[in-house]
Amino acid sequence: MQLTHFLPIARGDEPADLVLRNGRVINVFTGEIIDADVAIAGDCIVGVGPEYEAGEEIDLGGRYVCPGLIDAHVHIESSMVTPPQFARVVVPRGTTTVVTDPHEIANVVGADGIRYMLAVSQGLPLTVCVNLPSCVPATHMGTAGAELTADDLVALRDLERVTGLAEFMNVPGAVLGLPGALEKLVAFQGRVIDGHAPGTTGKWLQAYVGAGPGSDHECTTADEMVEKLRLGMVVFIRESTAAKNLRALLPAVTPQNSRRCAFGTDDRHPADLLDEGHLDHLIRLAVDEGLDPVTAIQLATLNVAQWFRLRDRGAIAPGKRADLVIFSDLNDFRAEMVFGGGELVARDGAPVGEWPTPAVDDSHVRDTVHVDWGQLSFAIPAEGERVRVVGVVPDQVVTEHLVEPAKLEDGLAVADVERDVLKMAVIERHRGTGNVGLGFVRGLGLRRGALAGSVGHDAHNLTVAGCDDVSMMTAARAVGELGGGLVAAAGEDVLGAVPLPIAGLMSDQPVETVRRQMDHLVDLATDLGSPLHDPFMALGFLALEVIPTLKLTDRGLVDVEKFDFVPLFV
Amino acid sequence: MQLTHFLPIARGDEPADLVLRNGRVINVFTGEIIDADVAIAGDCIVGVGPEYEAGEEIDLGGRYVCPGLIDAHVHIESSMVTPPQFARVVVPRGTTTVVTDPHEIANVVGADGIRYMLAVSQGLPLTVCVNLPSCVPATHMGTAGAELTADDLVALRDLERVTGLAEFMNVPGAVLGLPGALEKLVAFQGRVIDGHAPGTTGKWLQAYVGAGPGSDHECTTADEMVEKLRLGMVVFIRESTAAKNLRALLPAVTPQNSRRCAFGTDDRHPADLLDEGHLDHLIRLAVDEGLDPVTAIQLATLNVAQWFRLRDRGAIAPGKRADLVIFSDLNDFRAEMVFGGGELVARDGAPVGEWPTPAVDDSHVRDTVHVDWGQLSFAIPAEGERVRVVGVVPDQVVTEHLVEPAKLEDGLAVADVERDVLKMAVIERHRGTGNVGLGFVRGLGLRRGALAGSVGHDAHNLTVAGCDDVSMMTAARAVGELGGGLVAAAGEDVLGAVPLPIAGLMSDQPVETVRRQMDHLVDLATDLGSPLHDPFMALGFLALEVIPTLKLTDRGLVDVEKFDFVPLFV
Repeated sequence: MQLTHFLPIARGDEPADLVLRNGRVINVFTGEIIDADVAIAGDCIVGVGPEYEAGEEIDLGGRYVCPGLIDAHVHIESSMVTPPQFARVVVPRGTTTVVTDPHEIANVVGADGIRYMLAVSQGLPLTVCVNLPSCVPATHMGTAGAELTADDLVALRDLERVTGLAEFMNVPGAVLGLPGALEKLVAFQGRVIDGHAPGTTGKWLQAYVGAGPGSDHECTTADEMVEKLRLGMVVFIRESTAAKNLRALLPAVTPQNSRRCAFGTDDRHPADLLDEGHLDHLIRLAVDEGLDPVTAIQLATLNVAQWFRLRDRGAIAPGKRADLVIFSDLNDFRAEMVFGGGELVARDGAPVGEWPTPAVDDSHVRDTVHVDWGQLSFAIPAEGERVRVVGVVPDQVVTEHLVEPAKLEDGLAVADVERDVLKMAVIERHRGTGNVGLGFVRGLGLRRGALAGSVGHDAHNLTVAGCDDVSMMTAARAVGELGGGLVAAAGEDVLGAVPLPIAGLMSDQPVETVRRQMDHLVDLATDLGSPLHDPFMALGFLALEVIPTLKLTDRGLVDVEKFDFVPLFV
Repeated sequence: MQLTHFLPIARGDEPADLVLRNGRVINVFTGEIIDADVAIAGDCIVGVGPEYEAGEEIDLGGRYVCPGLIDAHVHIESSMVTPPQFARVVVPRGTTTVVTDPHEIANVVGADGIRYMLAVSQGLPLTVCVNLPSCVPATHMGTAGAELTADDLVALRDLERVTGLAEFMNVPGAVLGLPGALEKLVAFQGRVIDGHAPGTTGKWLQAYVGAGPGSDHECTTADEMVEKLRLGMVVFIRESTAAKNLRALLPAVTPQNSRRCAFGTDDRHPADLLDEGHLDHLIRLAVDEGLDPVTAIQLATLNVAQWFRLRDRGAIAPGKRADLVIFSDLNDFRAEMVFGGGELVARDGAPVGEWPTPAVDDSHVRDTVHVDWGQLSFAIPAEGERVRVVGVVPDQVVTEHLVEPAKLEDGLAVADVERDVLKMAVIERHRGTGNVGLGFVRGLGLRRGALAGSVGHDAHNLTVAGCDDVSMMTAARAVGELGGGLVAAAGEDVLGAVPLPIAGLMSDQPVETVRRQMDHLVDLATDLGSPLHDPFMALGFLALEVIPTLKLTDRGLVDVEKFDFVPLFV
């Protein structure tokens, strides 16, 4: 907003557009709750206090007003919907800004994916800031769809809404000063660099912090959090679908250090977003665990804004963006009204009014499944008596490194359904290289059929597991025909699917639709015998070669502890 | 420090240069005090914790270690010495960084003065950051030596060590959006803009904050401070020679809002620096008043660094600049050792080692007194029976607006020593315009002789007051012959002087010398009859036309409340 427009209204010479009367304003600067009106003009707060006049008034009747919530770290792709659809689910819950790391889409289509995420979120009631993915690809032991060099990142770093460099996962690269890593860190010196250092401690942590990453969202214990806080890291307390850290970390938050803490959601799947919520869920949980409610709101507003240097938001004060949440109960934070840039954009959990639908050329992020199906075979010639098997651990992304007797038929190693040793394949799907990694997996529990998906962290190749090659091929080809998605198949029948046409990661449908599709698909997987409550989530992490212990990429089996390939047959 | 040098030491593969063993480290991030070693390499902290090896070790024997102190707002010129000499007095007291506003020298020589302050402080153990003076000249009712437009400031804003825009004193300009003011605010949008809004409240304060200034160091009451904190201003608690606000403001500091508070010294004269100290004095005073010692240190370290975005300092953590203070008593903060950029630079209150003496061409800031003495006359033709008289208020910069009978002799109005109505003149001294403002002053109390000085806020014209024109002329010409300074004279005799050859504001001698010279000069003024403990300070503010009530500039008498000139005779 232009100062020439702002000033006459702020000083009271001209009326505001809107006054919210009789609010109890959460003052995140002072930790106070203050009875006050909030005057708004355009997208901007012009005054806080009594005696402002306006064209429109809303009587809050003593309800609370806090700044719009800001998510310190999220991968929107994990919601399986596009940013506009993601906005429709999180804004009504009080989130008006997110810092997203488009790491997943960047692994598929590189900088085009980052530019798509920026373009498609233009003008939404949700401000989508982008922290640039620092580690694409995660390693060179799998084939991603793109690589982002330091130069590629430098070309993006000054775009509007780009905040800095996201979760620097390459801890050895930073600590040992390896060339590719160092180049990126140096390119972002003086800017925001988010860290990602699960379990890193002692001198390695000191070196890592000194190398540049200044935040961390991977703490799992209070001790780990305290060590990181002491070294000056801002700690994002994460409560995602896959990693729930809030209860473990909250005891480490003190009145003295809370300014250095924030909330991040990382990955939240459709059902969690709809059933539990977004940052509002984290605030409720934290307050329920005993955190002061105003402190909890600070962790989701001012503290995040400070870390990301988003100086126009995160507080209720003149000149700040009019992103506001109205709610009634400090101990049960539920957004009743949400204002985004001065407009009422949600009420009682639902969007209000027409939201912009940015017209974006998404051709670069569609049609991303490129497999040479004619060449494809899942046959595994027998080369020994025993095979390595990836062991699924329920609700974890780590796996076990198992060794089992191979089931041999006609000179081939095949699935052994009775012993829950399914066949698994990771099919390179970006460039049609013909790469296929083949192996075995235990823990998915299928008794028949196959599951396949184009979500396969981090390279997002086509991952398929099943009881027989025909079912596997049916499932995999169906994913290909959808241009990406999740599929359950049995024999030559496709039983069900969740289409994910955007980079093979995101639907173009609303989150409620995706959630119904997912529920149905998981029911089908259950019918096929899987005991897991989300076997597709398990499937999606079987190829992630940076998480222990045994993983399968399109290039073969990886022993993560050795950080190298190992043969299938022992 | 290069990361390739830092990393092997931080991770423990190579030894550090220096380890401070057995410290009690003030952790400003968490508010804790932690037993730890601090490892240093080059100018950088490489690790905090045990087990670091180094070429050199110092056993702290359990003494405290805190980050080097950072002054949020200071005019170095007020110390009457140059930055290198200022450093020699404040660094041994624990201050390793200051944000200075070279407002005084800029009023004399403009951008040249700012560049001089940057150049002459290059490489000192004290990091001298510069916030650019926003209001040069203060008004157009006096003649300053320079004018800084928005364009002039833009040309300086990206220089190394320039932090932003200093105390935006033009409150009406900001609130009313007047062109010159608005242009500067817009030019610094997104950068640090310090405020200066004494007593501003209500909607004007809301407009002022929204216009950009985000800090304030002019609070005099706890209520004023709380109002400003609530609007998001960072409040610098000031304890200067002329304005002592700490005791009044400290009750407003709470554990919830202390992150938004900082310390600033603004103006401290040589005697106060030497006798009381610098930021160490503020910390002692605050702790004595009951503030938690670690919180007090945060107000002088991390909080200041955060506001000014000095991300390489203000805390003890890997990668931060090794500016450290060693002290023994939390309740009586006295620096025993001071490290600046990893070097021991002071011990037991005195500098250690050779400090750099930057070779600087200072010709632009010397020889700044340009008066056409031949034209000069202090004669005041009688034009009435009664005159306005500037009334000095002891220890204040405000004055009274008095009206007294004129003493007339030979058709001229002259000083009336019996009634303590002295003659006063403000001689334009920058450009030789011949401007002389003439008037009368009560409260200096001289019985004979005259006082003169080239320090005359903010335009810094040559200000002289005395009992007779001959003494006044002697004093004024002596200031001119010194190229700036403070002088006491009687008749045709110069009694004593403090030479201030740098812009007429600063000595080129050490602060101890200046202090002795000042003490002697004040003794002389006392001999001449002045009852004030520092009549030169009073003299230096008699021309400041932005502070109530009646002031005299080189262009005439100013009624500050009317913000306009008024005639001498009523």
